[in-house]
Amino acid sequence: MNRSLAVALVLLLGLPTTARADEAPPPTMADVLEASTPADWRRPAPEDTLYLELATGRVVIELAAAFAPKHVAQIRALANAKYYDGLAIVRVQENYVVQWGDPDAADAEKRRSTGDQPRTLAAEFARPIEGAPAFARLADGDVYAPEVGHSQGFPVARDPKQGTTWLAHCYGMLGAGRDDAADSGGGTELYVVIGHAPRHLDRNVTLVGRVLTGMEHLSTLPRGSAAMGFHEKAEQRVPIRAIRLANEVPAAERSALEVFRTDTAAFQRLVESRRNRREPWFLDPTGRIDLCNVPVPVRAAKD
Amino acid sequence: MNRSLAVALVLLLGLPTTARADEAPPPTMADVLEASTPADWRRPAPEDTLYLELATGRVVIELAAAFAPKHVAQIRALANAKYYDGLAIVRVQENYVVQWGDPDAADAEKRRSTGDQPRTLAAEFARPIEGAPAFARLADGDVYAPEVGHSQGFPVARDPKQGTTWLAHCYGMLGAGRDDAADSGGGTELYVVIGHAPRHLDRNVTLVGRVLTGMEHLSTLPRGSAAMGFHEKAEQRVPIRAIRLANEVPAAERSALEVFRTDTAAFQRLVESRRNRREPWFLDPTGRIDLCNVPVPVRAAKD
Repeated sequence: MNRSLAVALVLLLGLPTTARADEAPPPTMADVLEASTPADWRRPAPEDTLYLELATGRVVIELAAAFAPKHVAQIRALANAKYYDGLAIVRVQENYVVQWGDPDAADAEKRRSTGDQPRTLAAEFARPIEGAPAFARLADGDVYAPEVGHSQGFPVARDPKQGTTWLAHCYGMLGAGRDDAADSGGGTELYVVIGHAPRHLDRNVTLVGRVLTGMEHLSTLPRGSAAMGFHEKAEQRVPIRAIRLANEVPAAERSALEVFRTDTAAFQRLVESRRNRREPWFLDPTGRIDLCNVPVPVRAAKD
Repeated sequence: MNRSLAVALVLLLGLPTTARADEAPPPTMADVLEASTPADWRRPAPEDTLYLELATGRVVIELAAAFAPKHVAQIRALANAKYYDGLAIVRVQENYVVQWGDPDAADAEKRRSTGDQPRTLAAEFARPIEGAPAFARLADGDVYAPEVGHSQGFPVARDPKQGTTWLAHCYGMLGAGRDDAADSGGGTELYVVIGHAPRHLDRNVTLVGRVLTGMEHLSTLPRGSAAMGFHEKAEQRVPIRAIRLANEVPAAERSALEVFRTDTAAFQRLVESRRNRREPWFLDPTGRIDLCNVPVPVRAAKD
């Protein structure tokens, strides 16, 4: 049977086109990754790559300068000034966040100096769509925002009527904690989402990046027993050995990683492979996906 | 100023009605719980309450007999036969699931006997809406299903056209693992969701209950290093001391818990308090909520 006859029959009979014996089944994610080319991957810039060093290992974070430029500049400056070194994880809340900073932050006399850096910054909850990085929109909608998808590897939401776009609180996203005032944050306190996406935090707090590897060093930490998961005793806090930008670390000590691009046809195939699961285990391929269930793969760089 | 004049001014000036000094602001969740009465809470039936006993403590699970009656009957029988005692957590996958069962399950000669119980059951992926427990529908829609909400404290989805309803894969839900065939599960392998809701598993696998307390004993476990988070070595597995139904445990050793009812006006107020966050920290109350972000509170019973 030739192809146009097959298509005509499909249209006539309503058969799924995937049932044609002369066509390969739709690719799974493993197939998409296997077929990917070097151009489908990118290396995060060292100045956008942050290493959180804990006793158990390294957490690698990619910063989102296009969405929170002032906060990212501040975090770079604080890291370079070794502001974070010796501070601690002070909060681990089940199904919510891990948070670190200066345990003495509330005490103006004891807290660590931010040096030349301001202690707080204006909020960067959202930015204009105009001039924003390429946006790969998801097809299946969202409970919280008019549009969702990915920009530069980050999960993002958009409101075309308002002309704004913002990073979304998915698992593994990094944010800058604040007090009640919008401009009371500034990168001295940071948190990572370790539970179901708390999307109600979107546009309430400035997100600044995403964990690429090492989530398990945060997600497995003992939960804090005080309100909101704060640790009650100083000895329960987890010390931060150091936070460094990759470009401040000797080349031999860097984590050489590649991130799957989200502005490619290959990424569209990956999303489709997750919207419709074709692995043998899946009996119902689902046909839909929500923003925070889309994986953006990370792998060791191949030199 | 009298009330009608105030209302007139509000209409005229477009002031938010919550700014009226003569009306209390909408309640927060803390307010809703504070104002709740004993009738807003229920005690899970002991025969629906499962204790998973680990070295670090107890995980309390409520079984969903209305949604998976055969699987729940099987799990009760296996627990009463002490089938699970001495088995192990064999898989801990980051941002996904913790799974336990018989490490020798694949070896027909070495695996533990299920006694009089069948090893596998027909799938219970969904059930008819007709005869299902009361459904409290959420207002804001869902990416995966036509309708979502809560029944008997469990997150559920519904398809009115198909006339079916099913438990949804939110954080803390308990499911019965299976192999590729729909009827290859049966309660000998169980898993709990420890990450962002993997809703693509809905209607692909039988859910059987929800963790009420003790999630941290599962979510903080070291991740397995083999594919899909399986542990590579036997010594990495986490032993299961016992799994018991509460009605098989002496009364003094039971966990006396109460769960917030989901078929009440108080629950509607709780949902509204989470759709529109009024705590001082929130600058944008959000106005929407997704299924798996709705908390169903659990507290120690007050005797």
